Amino acid sequence: MEPAPNPLAIAHQHVRFADGTVLDCGVRLPSLEVAYRTYGTLNGERTNAILVCHALTGDQYVAEPHPLTGRPGWWEAVVGPGRPIDTDRFFVICANVLGGCMGSTGPRSVRDDDRGDGTALWGTAFPPVTIGDMVRAQQRLITHLGIHRLFAVVGGSMGGMQALQWAASYPDRVFAAVPVAAAAYHSAQNIAFHEVGRQAIFADPDWQGGRYWQTGRVPARGLAVARMAAHITYLSEQALTRKFGRRQRGAETAGAQSPGEASGEEGAGLGMFDEIFEVESYLRHQGSTFVRRFDANSYLTITRAMDYFDLAQDHDGDLASAFRNARTRFCLVSFSSDWLFPTAESRAVARALNRAGANVSFVEIESDKGHDAFLLDEPGFHRTLAGFLAGCAEHAGLA
Amino acid sequence: MEPAPNPLAIAHQHVRFADGTVLDCGVRLPSLEVAYRTYGTLNGERTNAILVCHALTGDQYVAEPHPLTGRPGWWEAVVGPGRPIDTDRFFVICANVLGGCMGSTGPRSVRDDDRGDGTALWGTAFPPVTIGDMVRAQQRLITHLGIHRLFAVVGGSMGGMQALQWAASYPDRVFAAVPVAAAAYHSAQNIAFHEVGRQAIFADPDWQGGRYWQTGRVPARGLAVARMAAHITYLSEQALTRKFGRRQRGAETAGAQSPGEASGEEGAGLGMFDEIFEVESYLRHQGSTFVRRFDANSYLTITRAMDYFDLAQDHDGDLASAFRNARTRFCLVSFSSDWLFPTAESRAVARALNRAGANVSFVEIESDKGHDAFLLDEPGFHRTLAGFLAGCAEHAGLA
Repeated sequence: MEPAPNPLAIAHQHVRFADGTVLDCGVRLPSLEVAYRTYGTLNGERTNAILVCHALTGDQYVAEPHPLTGRPGWWEAVVGPGRPIDTDRFFVICANVLGGCMGSTGPRSVRDDDRGDGTALWGTAFPPVTIGDMVRAQQRLITHLGIHRLFAVVGGSMGGMQALQWAASYPDRVFAAVPVAAAAYHSAQNIAFHEVGRQAIFADPDWQGGRYWQTGRVPARGLAVARMAAHITYLSEQALTRKFGRRQRGAETAGAQSPGEASGEEGAGLGMFDEIFEVESYLRHQGSTFVRRFDANSYLTITRAMDYFDLAQDHDGDLASAFRNARTRFCLVSFSSDWLFPTAESRAVARALNRAGANVSFVEIESDKGHDAFLLDEPGFHRTLAGFLAGCAEHAGLA
Repeated sequence: MEPAPNPLAIAHQHVRFADGTVLDCGVRLPSLEVAYRTYGTLNGERTNAILVCHALTGDQYVAEPHPLTGRPGWWEAVVGPGRPIDTDRFFVICANVLGGCMGSTGPRSVRDDDRGDGTALWGTAFPPVTIGDMVRAQQRLITHLGIHRLFAVVGGSMGGMQALQWAASYPDRVFAAVPVAAAAYHSAQNIAFHEVGRQAIFADPDWQGGRYWQTGRVPARGLAVARMAAHITYLSEQALTRKFGRRQRGAETAGAQSPGEASGEEGAGLGMFDEIFEVESYLRHQGSTFVRRFDANSYLTITRAMDYFDLAQDHDGDLASAFRNARTRFCLVSFSSDWLFPTAESRAVARALNRAGANVSFVEIESDKGHDAFLLDEPGFHRTLAGFLAGCAEHAGLA
């Protein structure tokens, strides 16, 4: 495996707010950096901006090659010329979330508070952030770009949480919102899966209490296990069966390993734990590629932000009241085989929006691809998104 | 936490077969020990024996306190006087599976092949075993006990795999079989979850390539993570929501930690990763108690045995032909919220049994408790089991 570029050596396009920000937890960040990318052209009236919000392990490189991996942007199927989010028509903005590791202020940032000497990183001393904090940072960026009202906020998974939070926090600044494969809170099961991932990171001695940036040894094994566990939740049982089933790598029959592999020769006994099934090989690959591009402390911080998310709780338990003043047009999208953010969660949001008198449409896309469907080639989803944005553009008076 | 008893110091009731056994992988085990417990009395005709097969992390202590943990037997709700498997009426046998860590030959056994000096343990040099190997070892025990035909074989999860394997391997020796919450093969998703657990164990430096028995430091953190990930799959989203929801431990509101916890004081920044949600505390408890009673190498071996399981593949892909000569009466039981071994899998087995002309009944129990329902207080399941066994006892001529 060739060494990955040094993530800290990459210069990300960003804006720095020298006055910092106060987080929901009460802690003040002395300064705030927001790394972002834009695509397309902002019109003269500054009314054609679409903010794309990324998911847990996404970043701002939506529609261009990733600077660390060289792979295509994570939503090139959705964002680009002639795509559902058409960059010939809209000005698309995507920011790395607060707490992330691709240039926005987060655990991997140099700590510039009054205790540091300008060289220490935040690490696990980085304060807890919320989805609300992330959205507030994006709002600073949007204002900085001279945009008062976004034509749309679109995002899947944690990106969908941000879209909901935008509509709740800034109802006058969002014409349309498209929360995809999302929910208004993180469920007990989802918190549980996140906790498994965090414990896998904590269990890795290379995590070093979060101060691995001091030694250069990163908790790659723990982070890979976290990613593997999470990745299963992004797929569906049907998709795993269709893609891999019980197919094996090279072996003739299940359970019929060559005796030599396990005959008790010293060092030969691990044969049965090699990759036997294709699904194992796939998962291990997911784990090992992930650790080359992501920061473990960011993973801890962002999973926590998702766990905290509960929009109703911020409004005395009544989700509808979160949207009481919303004039935003909503399009909620779920996928039938998504068990991480099941359709029932989107339906609950739709009901709350209806109670709040909001303008809402809700579409469940038939797909066997699980939660990941929002990132994949799903023509039904793409048609829905394109159609909704076209209708809203007409209402918004965009040519 | 008080220290657990030394697992190797416990004397388990067992039988030793000095002639060993040849495994499906072709490796010969020089000797074979099968640890077991019995409850009730074998009748004069030796026709009232019920073999109970345990699941991945179970053992032979079905209906009595566990010698390591002191906790009640794992199936006391089902096995005992007046229980669905009534020890006043039946002679109940349960054996620790081959590859296990409670007295049957497994990775924690002293290696008695010609290479050892009588003190080394098998560890990861223990050969791969299959569900078929486990059942063959149980068959040796049953024969040793002077029983030709079992009145019934009953088991849940991996125990249900064994019940199916018994009926396929020894059709004349099983009058009735009750595979509960089981399937005829391990799915890609289930293999994937097992692989995450194995990788968590491998990632723990205390695993030491499987030779941790040489140093006395066991891979407790890795095994705990494996258990936590697996435990989520044993429950249902509904059960997690009902039992824990988003309830927090001590905190007032989500996302509103006291700033002091994360103000950047050295060493104080981990507050946000403490147990905040009750579901996290529960999972951590599941992980930490598990490692006190279970052996990591056994966990690796047994998860692999489950992954290998594919009864149809052993019969040219036709599950029905696995049961072609079965005169066994089957009762298949599934639970509506079990997503690890969903109802559809039991239904597929029922269809194959019907094609094979077998006597089969199939019951889906409505429950929100997930896969674990087979271990819990589920009156519908218990009534089904008791009723089926009573009917079979009548047909078998048991008074």
